[in-house]
Amino acid sequence: MTASKRNVYLKTIPLTEAVAKTQAALDREMLLRSEIVPTHEAAGRVLSEAVFAEYSSPTFHSAAMDGIAVTAKETFTAREGAPLRLTKDESYEPVNTGNPLPEGRDAVIMIENVISVDENTVEIETPAFPWQHVRRIGEDIVATELLFPQNQQISPYDIGALLSAGIWEVRVWEKVHVCIIPTGDEVLDFEKRPEPKPGQVIESNSQVLGAMARNLDCIVDRIPPVPDVPELLEKTVAEKLNDPYHLVIICAGSSAGSKDFTRATIAKLGEVVVHGVAAMPGKPSLLGVCKGKLVAGAPGYPVSAVVCFEELLTPLISWISRKPVPARPVVDAELTRKVPSKLGVEEFLRLSVGKVGDKYVATPLARGAGCITTMSRAQGVGRIPAQAEGIDQNSIVHTELLVEEKRLDEVLVTVGSHDNTLDILSDELMGLDTPMRLASSHVGSMGGILAIKNGSCHLAGAHLFDPETNDYNFPFIKKYLPDTDITLVNLAIRHQGFIVPKGNPKNIQSIKDIADGSIRFLNRQRGAGTRILFDYHLKEANISPASVTGYDKEEFTHMAVAVNVLTGAVDTGLGIFAAAKALDLDFVPLARERYDLIIPTAYLETPQVQAVLNLLQSPTFKARIEALGGYETSLTGTIMEPGIGLGE
Amino acid sequence: MTASKRNVYLKTIPLTEAVAKTQAALDREMLLRSEIVPTHEAAGRVLSEAVFAEYSSPTFHSAAMDGIAVTAKETFTAREGAPLRLTKDESYEPVNTGNPLPEGRDAVIMIENVISVDENTVEIETPAFPWQHVRRIGEDIVATELLFPQNQQISPYDIGALLSAGIWEVRVWEKVHVCIIPTGDEVLDFEKRPEPKPGQVIESNSQVLGAMARNLDCIVDRIPPVPDVPELLEKTVAEKLNDPYHLVIICAGSSAGSKDFTRATIAKLGEVVVHGVAAMPGKPSLLGVCKGKLVAGAPGYPVSAVVCFEELLTPLISWISRKPVPARPVVDAELTRKVPSKLGVEEFLRLSVGKVGDKYVATPLARGAGCITTMSRAQGVGRIPAQAEGIDQNSIVHTELLVEEKRLDEVLVTVGSHDNTLDILSDELMGLDTPMRLASSHVGSMGGILAIKNGSCHLAGAHLFDPETNDYNFPFIKKYLPDTDITLVNLAIRHQGFIVPKGNPKNIQSIKDIADGSIRFLNRQRGAGTRILFDYHLKEANISPASVTGYDKEEFTHMAVAVNVLTGAVDTGLGIFAAAKALDLDFVPLARERYDLIIPTAYLETPQVQAVLNLLQSPTFKARIEALGGYETSLTGTIMEPGIGLGE
Repeated sequence: MTASKRNVYLKTIPLTEAVAKTQAALDREMLLRSEIVPTHEAAGRVLSEAVFAEYSSPTFHSAAMDGIAVTAKETFTAREGAPLRLTKDESYEPVNTGNPLPEGRDAVIMIENVISVDENTVEIETPAFPWQHVRRIGEDIVATELLFPQNQQISPYDIGALLSAGIWEVRVWEKVHVCIIPTGDEVLDFEKRPEPKPGQVIESNSQVLGAMARNLDCIVDRIPPVPDVPELLEKTVAEKLNDPYHLVIICAGSSAGSKDFTRATIAKLGEVVVHGVAAMPGKPSLLGVCKGKLVAGAPGYPVSAVVCFEELLTPLISWISRKPVPARPVVDAELTRKVPSKLGVEEFLRLSVGKVGDKYVATPLARGAGCITTMSRAQGVGRIPAQAEGIDQNSIVHTELLVEEKRLDEVLVTVGSHDNTLDILSDELMGLDTPMRLASSHVGSMGGILAIKNGSCHLAGAHLFDPETNDYNFPFIKKYLPDTDITLVNLAIRHQGFIVPKGNPKNIQSIKDIADGSIRFLNRQRGAGTRILFDYHLKEANISPASVTGYDKEEFTHMAVAVNVLTGAVDTGLGIFAAAKALDLDFVPLARERYDLIIPTAYLETPQVQAVLNLLQSPTFKARIEALGGYETSLTGTIMEPGIGLGE
Repeated sequence: MTASKRNVYLKTIPLTEAVAKTQAALDREMLLRSEIVPTHEAAGRVLSEAVFAEYSSPTFHSAAMDGIAVTAKETFTAREGAPLRLTKDESYEPVNTGNPLPEGRDAVIMIENVISVDENTVEIETPAFPWQHVRRIGEDIVATELLFPQNQQISPYDIGALLSAGIWEVRVWEKVHVCIIPTGDEVLDFEKRPEPKPGQVIESNSQVLGAMARNLDCIVDRIPPVPDVPELLEKTVAEKLNDPYHLVIICAGSSAGSKDFTRATIAKLGEVVVHGVAAMPGKPSLLGVCKGKLVAGAPGYPVSAVVCFEELLTPLISWISRKPVPARPVVDAELTRKVPSKLGVEEFLRLSVGKVGDKYVATPLARGAGCITTMSRAQGVGRIPAQAEGIDQNSIVHTELLVEEKRLDEVLVTVGSHDNTLDILSDELMGLDTPMRLASSHVGSMGGILAIKNGSCHLAGAHLFDPETNDYNFPFIKKYLPDTDITLVNLAIRHQGFIVPKGNPKNIQSIKDIADGSIRFLNRQRGAGTRILFDYHLKEANISPASVTGYDKEEFTHMAVAVNVLTGAVDTGLGIFAAAKALDLDFVPLARERYDLIIPTAYLETPQVQAVLNLLQSPTFKARIEALGGYETSLTGTIMEPGIGLGE
């Protein structure tokens, strides 16, 4: 673990430069060949050469309507009220749509405008003009003309044109074949359905990158993880550089650590073109060319690996396969909080995006490169340019959407306190006829009130107890949201208490036991209702926060507190019963409290809020809440007034 | 062929109403079941139930960086210039990214900030704060918490979250299985690579609809065409109503003609829910429910079938499979010409869309429901609402894009005279490093000049001969574009003449032979340079247009003229040599002329025009033009000045 054993990055370069350098180092014509495929299986493929029509379409003048074929100039005398009588075979022939126009005829009269007199006689009251309702030879396609140019990606519509023009097979560029090689001593093969022990992680990046590559229409193979043995990695990569692969992705080991062998492997088998990009996450990305093939080293952290794929490999795969680089729809959204950023590095920010009132709002999600769920939870990605030191709160961020813009109308944005019933709410919302996605940020009750003030959410969950009035939330709304018309609706009454290991080994019975110095406590973050509750009870019991070991250790959700208790990292923390029950822990009750939804009255009629209000009346929803344990639904869905307290 | 034999449409209803009626008639829960699939193969699938995490991630406090693990409070005295010395095992342990944090440690210092003294000693100059560079237990995922709600479509990112949470398989909604049944006596099975005779067409709709259904992730089977025998159709459909199909699409036969059996078939096997929608194209669409399955009758005309699929079946398939209906990106574009429309019917208009100057411009493509190539050529679709009688020229049309908005920057919009070299240009443009798509409308040379005036194209092709000055195009530009700064660049010199059948059976030698009464001539449309040329030569020879049989019959392109000659529909027409050669016809030369590109000087530096100007200098491009025959490239790429004529 000394500096000498470590790799050193090549100069980190901007992403576009990294792509351009790699394109320059690759011979695309040699790398990807063309192949012939049947036309009807060619949707999505890219033509490697121009296609010219074999047949015309139509190949004959044909009737475009059911009716009679006539010679236009013989019908000119027909008038409303002065019908013209026509005789079959002599002056008309019946035709169905698609029939060839009989010799000498140049117009069709729709059956709706033909009066049948007898088997061989009809009358018309309007003249036909020449070529009326006739599809003329070559109207759609003329034999020998260019049907599609080279490098056109074949759409479903194009298949119809190709077949109609008598093109049964087409020459297209091969699909890009990708081999993904996970590496690392610590990674467990998901195929074996492992149970990770400390120090081990389940390998999943290969499947994320694989699915992304399949979305680009690549053919993807993945092999089981290769341990951190340089010779083994080199042997494996060398093997995969043979046909059919155009691209080999080595997962993890691309950094500059003492166990990162990817760079050395690429250098040995070919040339390292890029090592290190000026991006965050994604910095430890590697690109190289070995035996004419593209070889990439994707960072081990999931979000870094995704950025590496989307910003480097997606443009390169698109370029190799002659497709345009997929472009995401972009909207301008207001950032709900300040985000600092490092100068000289382009930063990618996962954003939870929704439409609140007339504007799009974007809330930055956790920035850790290890947080794969933030990619799942994000509706968009923002870029902080290399030359910026961050983005201020309420400023506009150019947001690349991960969903269609229209879908943002179906996102309910909630910011505030965390509660397990929000999970149930989220699931029930997605079960509606028009599914509604819940985007929730857990920043505590006070954070929710600030978000309402800032206009950055549809509603906020809060459970703020005011000892003076013995009421919930209203005193805080009055103080912090004096100018906003608010409707307060109860979600549930819930039980708060000390989450302790099974059997309560430290025998915690009341708040006094927390401060005996031997208990490792885990607190919630400032502004969390649970922390305010804890402070209130400490004060009531005359206990100083300084005497609580771990008072300064903070977590953001009940579940995070519970999982710390489960693993023995702490002895206890204050949280809701549902969190203890979920992880089969014990629970020492401290208080019951009201968890309400703070809703700006202006948003009451929005589809997002209406969906929630309807669900709060649903017996199924209430039953699911009760089933969690530690909840009461006696007030659920009721509009709160000051002074109700717990409604008892 | 009497009215009594024909079906009658049910009341035609708006598209949204047709979808709603069909949803009401279907039992979605019975129709589509759920199934279990391995997580790593689940990208794109929709969860049929909520997923809760099995494992936390990380499952342990772990190092987020390579470096040393320390206890934060033991490092508080470290300062720049006053390094703190730490001893291995006693006050630090080396860790690599991902390693579990050793017992008692609560922070990691990056290797870059650690000064190695000897094997067991390091120094630091900055204190660590608690939990610095540590990924805490459950930071990303907490066991038992909701990972994803029901009806969430699984993204590649989600696969990473699922595997990390120990979810090896997921319950998802089945894919929608579709059976497509082409029908009709006149249709030829493309699988047999047929050569259509008059009255026959190659069946291709099944493949267009099939590819569209696959794009919605359906599993699609298609059977060979079924002839127009009601009993046979009924037997076939009845068979396909069994598993595994959820949707049966009958292609063609959905109209009200005497040979349209689809409606009767559906009525016999179940219930017709919708027959006839207030849309154009697409009116003769049928929707029914048989044995709980959705059965659709798609119209026979390709564009009608596409509208039926996109406006009726796409929302229904999405609804059945619990996915949001795909929404196209929308831009506002200026319509380049007036489009009338029928009141009471929602009309779908295929549009060629490009960005000219600062605005998007949209040119309506041919409106025939039979023109499948217009779907291929369109970049967008406009809707004319049922209550509108059309859209005026230069008014704004809300355009649903068939391509990403960004791709519109890569469309070169040309309006004007048709020439076969434009095909070569189109192909070469798509071969560039940044491929450029040529969107060309053929409205004749004068039409091109008007488009330039209207600001609706980047350039216009014209070959307008002015007998007074013996010059090309300039006199017309001076007259019609007096206020526009124009750069005129030659594309090629080309040979115009009479296109005649092989062997010239009518022995046409000069323009005098055209007017002898026995020759069936085919003219070009008004405003076409070729028509102006013809008129000039008629006048020179003192021949009256009235004496030319077929002077009033118009076609829009040289190739269309040639194909009419080939099929014997006419004896001759005026056109370029390349068109005659392409169809192996003979050619009687009449004149040489200059075909130029009229370019507003303001657009000279746009990437679109630059791409063309560069190509005009390319020897490969010139060689391909020469190879067509009937072209000279002595002026190709040269900026024209008044008075140059043919440069001789």
